[in-house]
Amino acid sequence: MIEGIAPCVDGGRFAAKRVVGDVVTIEADIFADGHDLISAVLLHRHESETAQSETRMTALVNDRWRAELPVDRLGFFYFTFEAWIDHFLTWHRDLKKRAEADLEVQLRIGLEMIRSAAGGAKDRDRKRLEHYVAVIEGDDEIQDKVHDVASEELVRLMERNAERKFATSYAGELAIEVDPRRAGFSAWYELFPRSAGAEGKHGTLRDVEAQLPRIAKMGFDVLYLPPIHPIGATFRKGRNNSVAAEENDVGSPWAIGGKEGGHKALHPDLGTMDDFRRLVDAARSRGIELAMDIAFQASPDHPYVAEHAEWFQTRPDGTIQYAENPPKKYQDIYPFHFESDAWADLWKELCDIFRFWIDKGVRIFRVDNPHTKPLPFWHWVIRTVKKHRPDVIFLAEAFTRPKIMYWLAKAGFSQSYTYFAWRNTKYELTKYFEEITKPPVSDFFRPNAWPNTPDILPEYLQYGGKPAFTIRLMLAATLSANYGIYGPAFERFVGSPREAGSEEYLDSEKYEIRNWGPTDDDLTELIAVVNRIRRDNPALQQNLTLQFHETSNDDILCYSKSAGSDVVLTIVNVDPHNTQAGYVDLDLAVLDLDANQPFQVHELLSGARYTWHGPRNYVSLNPHVVPAHIFRIRRKVRSERDFEYFL
Amino acid sequence: MIEGIAPCVDGGRFAAKRVVGDVVTIEADIFADGHDLISAVLLHRHESETAQSETRMTALVNDRWRAELPVDRLGFFYFTFEAWIDHFLTWHRDLKKRAEADLEVQLRIGLEMIRSAAGGAKDRDRKRLEHYVAVIEGDDEIQDKVHDVASEELVRLMERNAERKFATSYAGELAIEVDPRRAGFSAWYELFPRSAGAEGKHGTLRDVEAQLPRIAKMGFDVLYLPPIHPIGATFRKGRNNSVAAEENDVGSPWAIGGKEGGHKALHPDLGTMDDFRRLVDAARSRGIELAMDIAFQASPDHPYVAEHAEWFQTRPDGTIQYAENPPKKYQDIYPFHFESDAWADLWKELCDIFRFWIDKGVRIFRVDNPHTKPLPFWHWVIRTVKKHRPDVIFLAEAFTRPKIMYWLAKAGFSQSYTYFAWRNTKYELTKYFEEITKPPVSDFFRPNAWPNTPDILPEYLQYGGKPAFTIRLMLAATLSANYGIYGPAFERFVGSPREAGSEEYLDSEKYEIRNWGPTDDDLTELIAVVNRIRRDNPALQQNLTLQFHETSNDDILCYSKSAGSDVVLTIVNVDPHNTQAGYVDLDLAVLDLDANQPFQVHELLSGARYTWHGPRNYVSLNPHVVPAHIFRIRRKVRSERDFEYFL
Repeated sequence: MIEGIAPCVDGGRFAAKRVVGDVVTIEADIFADGHDLISAVLLHRHESETAQSETRMTALVNDRWRAELPVDRLGFFYFTFEAWIDHFLTWHRDLKKRAEADLEVQLRIGLEMIRSAAGGAKDRDRKRLEHYVAVIEGDDEIQDKVHDVASEELVRLMERNAERKFATSYAGELAIEVDPRRAGFSAWYELFPRSAGAEGKHGTLRDVEAQLPRIAKMGFDVLYLPPIHPIGATFRKGRNNSVAAEENDVGSPWAIGGKEGGHKALHPDLGTMDDFRRLVDAARSRGIELAMDIAFQASPDHPYVAEHAEWFQTRPDGTIQYAENPPKKYQDIYPFHFESDAWADLWKELCDIFRFWIDKGVRIFRVDNPHTKPLPFWHWVIRTVKKHRPDVIFLAEAFTRPKIMYWLAKAGFSQSYTYFAWRNTKYELTKYFEEITKPPVSDFFRPNAWPNTPDILPEYLQYGGKPAFTIRLMLAATLSANYGIYGPAFERFVGSPREAGSEEYLDSEKYEIRNWGPTDDDLTELIAVVNRIRRDNPALQQNLTLQFHETSNDDILCYSKSAGSDVVLTIVNVDPHNTQAGYVDLDLAVLDLDANQPFQVHELLSGARYTWHGPRNYVSLNPHVVPAHIFRIRRKVRSERDFEYFL
Repeated sequence: MIEGIAPCVDGGRFAAKRVVGDVVTIEADIFADGHDLISAVLLHRHESETAQSETRMTALVNDRWRAELPVDRLGFFYFTFEAWIDHFLTWHRDLKKRAEADLEVQLRIGLEMIRSAAGGAKDRDRKRLEHYVAVIEGDDEIQDKVHDVASEELVRLMERNAERKFATSYAGELAIEVDPRRAGFSAWYELFPRSAGAEGKHGTLRDVEAQLPRIAKMGFDVLYLPPIHPIGATFRKGRNNSVAAEENDVGSPWAIGGKEGGHKALHPDLGTMDDFRRLVDAARSRGIELAMDIAFQASPDHPYVAEHAEWFQTRPDGTIQYAENPPKKYQDIYPFHFESDAWADLWKELCDIFRFWIDKGVRIFRVDNPHTKPLPFWHWVIRTVKKHRPDVIFLAEAFTRPKIMYWLAKAGFSQSYTYFAWRNTKYELTKYFEEITKPPVSDFFRPNAWPNTPDILPEYLQYGGKPAFTIRLMLAATLSANYGIYGPAFERFVGSPREAGSEEYLDSEKYEIRNWGPTDDDLTELIAVVNRIRRDNPALQQNLTLQFHETSNDDILCYSKSAGSDVVLTIVNVDPHNTQAGYVDLDLAVLDLDANQPFQVHELLSGARYTWHGPRNYVSLNPHVVPAHIFRIRRKVRSERDFEYFL
């Protein structure tokens, strides 16, 4: 029997996700009746291969078997299993235990198996197997024969050549989708290009280009731009989302399409397609990928409305159905009618929008509200795009119910926005991150943690001031390997809501140009330090090893991540108002620390080094100074020389 | 999307188990994109039906949907799901929220849907739908039309008649296997028929018949007999499992087969086939089913050995392979060679052994060591037998590794022996029963808890005396709806092992006749009380509601079970040597008790009644008197009259 496979998403209906360079631990429960030994192999192939490679599996405890599969290429790897009762191995194990009187008949039983394997073997293997046949058939003392066949060489020869009688093959292949490393580890920076210009001017893509050095210096590697297409005029929204726009109002970038074009056009005030390509290349030369916003909806002025009325839903009065949540109406937005009779053409055109921008150099797409379009569409379009471009990354902006959020991830989104913005307390953060960083969820869902977005100014940031922003930065950057900020507002601690109780920004950039200008105090230096720590520490470049540790204070969160010898321990005061102090109780087993040895902790924000001893250590964190420690733990002091670090 | 189905064993590869009369709660995660309303139905049928019945599902929270399926017949029920975005329901819900100006066009949208449904409807439904069409098309005030179509009748009519456009069908049917009630609730008594006779005599089936009144009085409803077939003479084992039997040694009943016949024959000293049928009938008339032992192995004297040498494995020296665990040999036992070239004939014959005894009236089989025979054989043979006899119960005696134990249950065994005999501490019992009484395990695995068997005299019983036996009885009978005892030894507190460190009985009945004779002190009266409590309380007839409660003493275990208004709380001191006292901290929410009201507890062993208040109550249990309380909780005191109970 072969069952209980890991990784395995929904019984194999979806692929598990990994990134290039990962070594995937693959496990299964493998067992049979009786007490004979079993052999098992993992059979695997990259999608570009038809022949399977074979890796022998190792038995752990409790009928669990394991093999490791390095995934060194983008795209899909497929794997399955074969296992069988290994009569030769059983015989070989038992031979040593046999009573003297039984040896002769036992050697004859072994002889039959070895001879049969020799018959099917080739070249040197055949010669060596025939050697063992000759040994058993020869005139040596029986104990000498037993000694000779006890050899490990014979075991290896039989592994390669013995018949696998009644082998069980697992029914079906399971899939692992291998994405670029950036899918698993990234730091996103969001800005509105039209706000990037000089005071009083509509910013351009060239202005964004001018900001690249600053963004690179802060250590971000994804630059995400809200939609950069022409914006509709009909029913255009005014400042602060007012229903009637005024003369000079620039409108919402998500009201896509105007007389200048739709999803494949650029807003004329932002620049030309050449400017766009230049920006993509300039960013890439600094290690930054551009992320493009994909919002599948149209303003009433979108060329599709006139050219493809069949892609929209028509009401009995002949008008086109606008977006609504009765009694609210969003008449500046027409949703596509994905179930229209012309759905096939529509779907193809939408897919073509991705292709168009891929041709312009884009490799990352941030998809707006995917949960309001048919789920099967996403499965199809992502598979279709990635079939030829497995290096493309899709981020799902699905702030919706958990099961839909998860389904979109299963269906192919490389990263997902999360509920992080609304998880503030120690209990909330612990519970949520324990869910999303462990299998089964972590096999398909890659969190991208955002403390703020242009749509979300959480209450925590409205009332916490600079300490709140600092705390949320630390948490996002160390809890989640992927994180991002709506940069200009975040780094300046912008916390004013449109009105009390709202998560909308006052004077939101969604509806107007904001020239941010210089600041007296901001978080850019701290952000740069945090992003450098993330780059220097492989532990922070993944989530699977995240482990929370006990603390004596409900406002102090303590967690570790490790990757090989790199162990990072983060301790955060989640109260933005008061100094909090208390004890952390480290799980030394998780940290692989010896309770009887001192260990060094290196505070990466300040550079300070401390010597700690045992699990219980005192911390005090003033949110107005620095609300967190990020320690690298130096574990396993092994020799006198290692102690030099402490001097 | 339809996923996350419960019950669902291994993604639907195996059936979930229930008993006749159960109402199965079936749930699934059902969701779609967007914010429109969904409708979902459960489609179900008994295996004897081809047409599916339909039950509308109810939405719970978080995209979870539920329906209840009463299973009133033996055999397999199959179920699947259909769900769709319900445009009519969405329209109906939103109509009330619409602005006045939108109502006209909205009514026209609804009109199209109602008219289309009327077109496909029949008889009265058609007339009523046409009525609503007329209402909308008529000359009433628009608000009157809105009022009229708001009716629930229209919703019901549309549920029945509206087109289910783009409905999603779940791929495949899931199965529920419905067993007799005794599969889920039973009390087993095991005895060796050959010991049932008078002093110095070989007992007979007639002697067993004479014991039925006593066994029925104790409240058992399954009488399990070890093998009753002829016993081999070759390599017969002597008393205390000695290798060389003496002249009058009777041998082990599991060394099946002699010159008098094999698995379809009776040991001549036990009686005739008529005696056997008589015993089956006499037991049944007292509410007791006979359970037959099925041990698929042969003594060297079994007729199969001569008649079907091809069913055994032959060694190179021409001898038949006996059972072994090198260097140990069990030369009195030949295993069947299930992978022999003649496997098909062998499997058919083994299946025929079940059929033979079913013809003689047997409905319960206790299968010896199924884990040492090929797992697929059990899947096949159980399915084959139950296809025509779904009332048959199979108990797996697989004291083996957990995954094999579970697989056998998935493959069809109705009940399974457990690790209960070796789980003695509060921690062990809590952990183990939490695992085996909750889904996913409880959907396929029905524990049958045995404190002792002829093979297992646990250390706990060797050193704990009468209190240990009492404790283990209470635990088995109240933790597990199915339990059993190796009766004559258990009721007499027989605790002497063959040698120190062994779990074998001294002078084990497996190898000799034991005439138990009368006792001065035994557990039979207490057993009768406990079995009566089990019969009186539906809470103890299932495991799913088992819930452990906190206690302040690590030797005091406290747990509840409930079924409807019947709530049973059991508190056990697991220390057989000392009185233990402490507080139990009841989870009042689980017990559905009001923290502000007193509640009555009725001690069912003693008949005493107490009034308790709140969660924390003191208990003191002397194992030498009675080591447990079994309370029935009287909850929800609702009126003055109810208080009369307290007077």
